Amino acid sequence: MTGRARTRFAGTRVIGVDPGLNATGYAIIECGLKVSLLEAGVIRLPRSQANNLPIRLELLFKGLGEVIEEFRPETMCLEEVFSHARYPRTSVLMGHARGVVCLAARLALIPVISFPPKRIKLSVTGNGNASKTQVQRAIQSYFDLDRVPQPPDVADALAAALCFADARRTAGNGRSSGNR
Amino acid sequence: MTGRARTRFAGTRVIGVDPGLNATGYAIIECGLKVSLLEAGVIRLPRSQANNLPIRLELLFKGLGEVIEEFRPETMCLEEVFSHARYPRTSVLMGHARGVVCLAARLALIPVISFPPKRIKLSVTGNGNASKTQVQRAIQSYFDLDRVPQPPDVADALAAALCFADARRTAGNGRSSGNR
Repeated sequence: MTGRARTRFAGTRVIGVDPGLNATGYAIIECGLKVSLLEAGVIRLPRSQANNLPIRLELLFKGLGEVIEEFRPETMCLEEVFSHARYPRTSVLMGHARGVVCLAARLALIPVISFPPKRIKLSVTGNGNASKTQVQRAIQSYFDLDRVPQPPDVADALAAALCFADARRTAGNGRSSGNR
Repeated sequence: MTGRARTRFAGTRVIGVDPGLNATGYAIIECGLKVSLLEAGVIRLPRSQANNLPIRLELLFKGLGEVIEEFRPETMCLEEVFSHARYPRTSVLMGHARGVVCLAARLALIPVISFPPKRIKLSVTGNGNASKTQVQRAIQSYFDLDRVPQPPDVADALAAALCFADARRTAGNGRSSGNR
């Protein structure tokens, strides 16, 4: 094939996800010359099924599948695996949800990128140790939203997606725009 | 509908699973008048993909799906969620695998039963605090196997399935056989 110099203006569509067994936050952004927010929301898993893990995982799998089907993102961003030493059981249950989220991405042929929590906070607020409230406010300000994104799962999903935009911008510094 | 008195001699087919990200053990048994072992094995997830969690989860999902498709078990048995305080990260990763296993069962309309680890050890060895080796030997003896089931994931999957047989036998005591 002959070489091709090109400048891509179409944005990369990214889904950020914050997996959980009660609520899984998601956010779809498009990272082009600027970053646009397409949709953000939460997949709630009914408390009435709190004792039925398989049903909740199915609802998460299908709910996320619908979002992926509708927006066809090219990349999924998550927080890296972490474990709360104080809440080991909660961490393991979150692992169930995160596993199903990773599987949904893989079956849709979407690569998954995991960022360390500090890296996400740093790119969103400029401070790797920012509080949850600081992250929420930074996101509200970034997208010029009327109010802080609620529930916090949505803000965390948005933060993971924004980290991708930041990582790409950083990686792109010093390159000619025709390179990609 | 009219009442129907019946005695079922066909066994209930049960799959026991021990989920893990390196190897997931499974065992298919049939619990009728006696318990028969149909197949036991392990789904290995390649170490070469150790850094690609989504690929490993897909291999697990599809591998377990093939076993379910072939044997069409009516019930899946697992150990209850637990978390090693000393290995929190490993527990969260195991949670990813367990989530995908539960999802595979749910999508195949197979109910999942979780037993506490002590309950499983008790039904297999008569001692709720039995060691791994004791569990393996008890299973070898129960099914009259030439050697101890290897790797241990297979023995754990067999133990979970056997716990179902034991729970049903216990629940059935004192009932007339025509009741079920």
